[in-house]
Amino acid sequence: MPLTLTDRPPVAIIMGSQSDWETMKNAADTLEALEIPYEARIISAHRTPERMVNFAKTARDEGFKVIIAGAGGAAHLPGMTAALTPLPVFGVPVQSKTMSGQDSLLSIVQMPGGIPVGTLAIGKAGAINAALLAAAVLALSDEDIAERLDEYRERQSASIAEYPMDNL
Amino acid sequence: MPLTLTDRPPVAIIMGSQSDWETMKNAADTLEALEIPYEARIISAHRTPERMVNFAKTARDEGFKVIIAGAGGAAHLPGMTAALTPLPVFGVPVQSKTMSGQDSLLSIVQMPGGIPVGTLAIGKAGAINAALLAAAVLALSDEDIAERLDEYRERQSASIAEYPMDNL
Amino acid sequence: MPLTLTDRPPVAIIMGSQSDWETMKNAADTLEALEIPYEARIISAHRTPERMVNFAKTARDEGFKVIIAGAGGAAHLPGMTAALTPLPVFGVPVQSKTMSGQDSLLSIVQMPGGIPVGTLAIGKAGAINAALLAAAVLALSDEDIAERLDEYRERQSASIAEYPMDNL
Amino acid sequence: MPLTLTDRPPVAIIMGSQSDWETMKNAADTLEALEIPYEARIISAHRTPERMVNFAKTARDEGFKVIIAGAGGAAHLPGMTAALTPLPVFGVPVQSKTMSGQDSLLSIVQMPGGIPVGTLAIGKAGAINAALLAAAVLALSDEDIAERLDEYRERQSASIAEYPMDNL
Amino acid sequence: MPLTLTDRPPVAIIMGSQSDWETMKNAADTLEALEIPYEARIISAHRTPERMVNFAKTARDEGFKVIIAGAGGAAHLPGMTAALTPLPVFGVPVQSKTMSGQDSLLSIVQMPGGIPVGTLAIGKAGAINAALLAAAVLALSDEDIAERLDEYRERQSASIAEYPMDNL
Amino acid sequence: MPLTLTDRPPVAIIMGSQSDWETMKNAADTLEALEIPYEARIISAHRTPERMVNFAKTARDEGFKVIIAGAGGAAHLPGMTAALTPLPVFGVPVQSKTMSGQDSLLSIVQMPGGIPVGTLAIGKAGAINAALLAAAVLALSDEDIAERLDEYRERQSASIAEYPMDNL
Amino acid sequence: MPLTLTDRPPVAIIMGSQSDWETMKNAADTLEALEIPYEARIISAHRTPERMVNFAKTARDEGFKVIIAGAGGAAHLPGMTAALTPLPVFGVPVQSKTMSGQDSLLSIVQMPGGIPVGTLAIGKAGAINAALLAAAVLALSDEDIAERLDEYRERQSASIAEYPMDNL
Amino acid sequence: MPLTLTDRPPVAIIMGSQSDWETMKNAADTLEALEIPYEARIISAHRTPERMVNFAKTARDEGFKVIIAGAGGAAHLPGMTAALTPLPVFGVPVQSKTMSGQDSLLSIVQMPGGIPVGTLAIGKAGAINAALLAAAVLALSDEDIAERLDEYRERQSASIAEYPMDNL
Repeated sequence: MPLTLTDRPPVAIIMGSQSDWETMKNAADTLEALEIPYEARIISAHRTPERMVNFAKTARDEGFKVIIAGAGGAAHLPGMTAALTPLPVFGVPVQSKTMSGQDSLLSIVQMPGGIPVGTLAIGKAGAINAALLAAAVLALSDEDIAERLDEYRERQSASIAEYPMDNL
Repeated sequence: MPLTLTDRPPVAIIMGSQSDWETMKNAADTLEALEIPYEARIISAHRTPERMVNFAKTARDEGFKVIIAGAGGAAHLPGMTAALTPLPVFGVPVQSKTMSGQDSLLSIVQMPGGIPVGTLAIGKAGAINAALLAAAVLALSDEDIAERLDEYRERQSASIAEYPMDNL
Repeated sequence: MPLTLTDRPPVAIIMGSQSDWETMKNAADTLEALEIPYEARIISAHRTPERMVNFAKTARDEGFKVIIAGAGGAAHLPGMTAALTPLPVFGVPVQSKTMSGQDSLLSIVQMPGGIPVGTLAIGKAGAINAALLAAAVLALSDEDIAERLDEYRERQSASIAEYPMDNL
Repeated sequence: MPLTLTDRPPVAIIMGSQSDWETMKNAADTLEALEIPYEARIISAHRTPERMVNFAKTARDEGFKVIIAGAGGAAHLPGMTAALTPLPVFGVPVQSKTMSGQDSLLSIVQMPGGIPVGTLAIGKAGAINAALLAAAVLALSDEDIAERLDEYRERQSASIAEYPMDNL
Repeated sequence: MPLTLTDRPPVAIIMGSQSDWETMKNAADTLEALEIPYEARIISAHRTPERMVNFAKTARDEGFKVIIAGAGGAAHLPGMTAALTPLPVFGVPVQSKTMSGQDSLLSIVQMPGGIPVGTLAIGKAGAINAALLAAAVLALSDEDIAERLDEYRERQSASIAEYPMDNL
Repeated sequence: MPLTLTDRPPVAIIMGSQSDWETMKNAADTLEALEIPYEARIISAHRTPERMVNFAKTARDEGFKVIIAGAGGAAHLPGMTAALTPLPVFGVPVQSKTMSGQDSLLSIVQMPGGIPVGTLAIGKAGAINAALLAAAVLALSDEDIAERLDEYRERQSASIAEYPMDNL
Repeated sequence: MPLTLTDRPPVAIIMGSQSDWETMKNAADTLEALEIPYEARIISAHRTPERMVNFAKTARDEGFKVIIAGAGGAAHLPGMTAALTPLPVFGVPVQSKTMSGQDSLLSIVQMPGGIPVGTLAIGKAGAINAALLAAAVLALSDEDIAERLDEYRERQSASIAEYPMDNL
Repeated sequence: MPLTLTDRPPVAIIMGSQSDWETMKNAADTLEALEIPYEARIISAHRTPERMVNFAKTARDEGFKVIIAGAGGAAHLPGMTAALTPLPVFGVPVQSKTMSGQDSLLSIVQMPGGIPVGTLAIGKAGAINAALLAAAVLALSDEDIAERLDEYRERQSASIAEYPMDNL
């Protein structure tokens, strides 16, 4: 099936509920810092399963290239999305109230052989890194993104102060 | 929507892969001991998502009353089935190779508010108990099953020897 | 033994202590939203064992159909109730102070083969879902409840906004 | 209520199932080494709840002084026994198949304030130690046991070789 | 060795640091409610090892009958005390800052065969229960304590309200 | 910096020790099934740190596009490689002897914001999925790989039998 | 290679980020109390890998004798530093937000055979103890430090009050 | 107190029981490979507490410089030894039967501020690394050991094959 070029942005950020946005907007902010367009949507695997099926099955034809999926608790969104699309899916375990995201992490990362989800750290760090990983993937065929990602990483390295007491 | 009476058995036992049958046949054996018909099927949430959607969305109209779903690792089958059917779903965490079923347990039990999965113990005990719980549900409107379940429990109590050294 | 029809509501919500009510009232609120009558009682397996034995042994004859039992820590109430009644018992692990409910979860879900407790998520989500699972069970023989449960799930799906930034 | 002196031995060893005997006989063997009589019984909290209630409620009047209770998984026997008797109860978490006894441990040790279970280590070491702790309790009012326990501990200390290579 | 009767109280409450008192005073309060005298001391296994050795080796001759030992983190006080005295030792895992007391619990309960520590729940509940277990032990040879313990348990049972909404 | 086209294969599979090959050859086999060339090397972050630095710093210029890194225990190879290359890095937690790979998983997935590692499941399933995720990334700009990946997934879905008893 | 004597202090305290200083300054304060000079630097294994390589490879020649390394999450700094220097490295797991430092602990302590990191407790206690362990190492060949360490330990023992209620 | 030079070897390897030798001989073998003399002894914190106190209190005067202590379960030997000697103590968590050494690890590493134990990995890798860390400490004031340790590390690096399939 040929890849259809549409005006969809290359990255979709999907999340299981409104409350996940507090975490997932870190992915959005990071993509903006890298000037990579994205679309953010709430898609609950459990409460809107048909929205999930529709989104995932059409994502490639719509023109998306990478999907970032965040969810908490029994977090099924990343894995189910990966089951329904051949696009690379990166999962962000959102920190859950009762188990600090350990349930989210295991529900996302322990996928059976056959359907991969590239899983990032629990919470904010994971959301930032999902965006950076999406950028690294897009950079493989987009030199502008590659350059901006290199600059981002250089700025990051340069921002680490040498002595802890200098900042106090 | 009226309940359609078909010739489907009241209980469906579904599982994520062939290898789960070793665990899940304990549910089947228990239902047979209680003379409750069932249908056992392999439905992988990740590798056959459409089979799962079709099964779950039609399960009530097909005449099923209770669904027993077993899966391991990032076990999404019970929760996704529960998202797609109003029938009671009971989940059995199958013991996984690397985490002894703790990933299976958390992926099944930690469902968000709105979509319940009644979760049983990891492994064989959980499979037996899923069948007994299904029987308890069916017994609410079927006195024959209620009677057989009472007898089953009485036999079980009577089978517990009084002194551990008597059996050696 | 024939089922005795009394004026008891179909659902009993029992809990190990007064402090569990903060969690368990979410089950009560959900049942009210579904117009399903219930009775809520404090029954401590450890501090009022005789109250527990009396309740559980007579629950079916009193007319209850489903029991929702919440407890925390070494949570024995759901399992002991299930040992004393053939009715379906759904367990809610209440979040404990020192172990975030992991002790509650394991004490409830890891029942031996023979005595099932359908276990829900730790805390508030689990309490809501215990009520929804009770409703799903009652709906099997009560079309009004089935209809209200369908509507509840449809409202729930419809309430999920499409875009996270719309709500900010 | 006066303590009734009967011909019951001072220690009861109870366990949830026949399979626990493999672990619990280490408690029996240790009591025998200390010449302390005991009675060993299978009492399942879940499958023979009435046997448990009868045993626990009459244990003091029967003449028992200390109860050692072993169980695995959602291990309710020690805690429920403690709820039904004022005698000291010592719990032994039996190693479970799927969770290596961590479920057993938490189900026994995390009792709410008001009903204590003195919990020992998971498995064989815990069974031995439950017997030694029972002996230490009985030794408080029985100088013969006190002396035998002292000798047991001295023999134990003396049995530890000084150099690891001596035994190879 | 004959038990020496001194004017020491029957129960010693020892703890690893001043900060453990917040937890351990619940043991003291419970003993006071039962009119059982006690002595509370700070004994750090790590920072005052000689104080610990002196205390533990002389505890029986000083007239103590039961030792309650609370500690957190790599909690060695209960086990080391048990290694140095034949008296029954009950351990209370104090809730640690970084691991919520799971390190405390395992460091106390997982004693090797030969040296028992009867371990209670993490934190406040465990401290209360250590006192109640000490009382149960003393009650075996002291009918006054037995009676007060019975009354304590009856008051406790009677204090559990029947309906959760009555207290709101 | 322009991407240099060399004759290096697009995927590098690196691993911390010879013993990891048993797990990581599942990644190699999967890439072969998809006709994607790869190079497999042993690179120990701890025992050959200079080999690691050299590999990672030159990987992009050498022509690699995706790096799959497997390691166990305190698994630093995936994260350190990701720190030294802008290429996407996918990490496979190899099952460790003492902690079943939970240490491997956390050491790989819990990367700080700034340096992402897309982490797969522990063990064999993770190795297979790292290869499939690499293929999904390469498929974004290579229609032949996209087609072969689609076929692989279709064959996979088709291979799931419908009824568990058919295979027995 | 002969040890080069420079004017570098004997102890280096390195940490993965500015935010680790809150924990690691406890190591600095303890070294100051023992009058042992140190140098504190921020060195991120992931964001400044070259700074880390440079530091670690030259640390011995620069005159450092012991390295204290603190990091959180997927904490690679202690292990990677140990891979690049023959000096003794002591690791401090900094308490992480989502997993309370359990990820930090396992990432630091579970090093493969061949490259050791002497790991201390999670958080503040670990930072203090890393300094004390460094002092114990330096004391082996510096009698002044040995004396000051002895005094430190004596003051510490003397500071433990005897009775918990004296301080209230 | 001046350091007394005796003919004791610089390293003591102590362990809690004969069965720990299987793990701890890896420390002995590693020291032998580095030509560093050692003495290996069985010292049970719990079953031979006086032997432990005697050993630890005299270790420095006897001429030992570094102590390697291995123990499993509620592993108190490393921490108690560290409480009784100013020498550096390195702890090896021996893999326990029921909890795979997680109890051993936490009992050793989570020491309170004031008494450090430099903790290594669970099991064999930890035993090897305790020896290497002892060597690194001794190397600070012994150039021969420093040289042999450098050579050991070079041989180790050189022994890592480049390609996994070369060894098959």
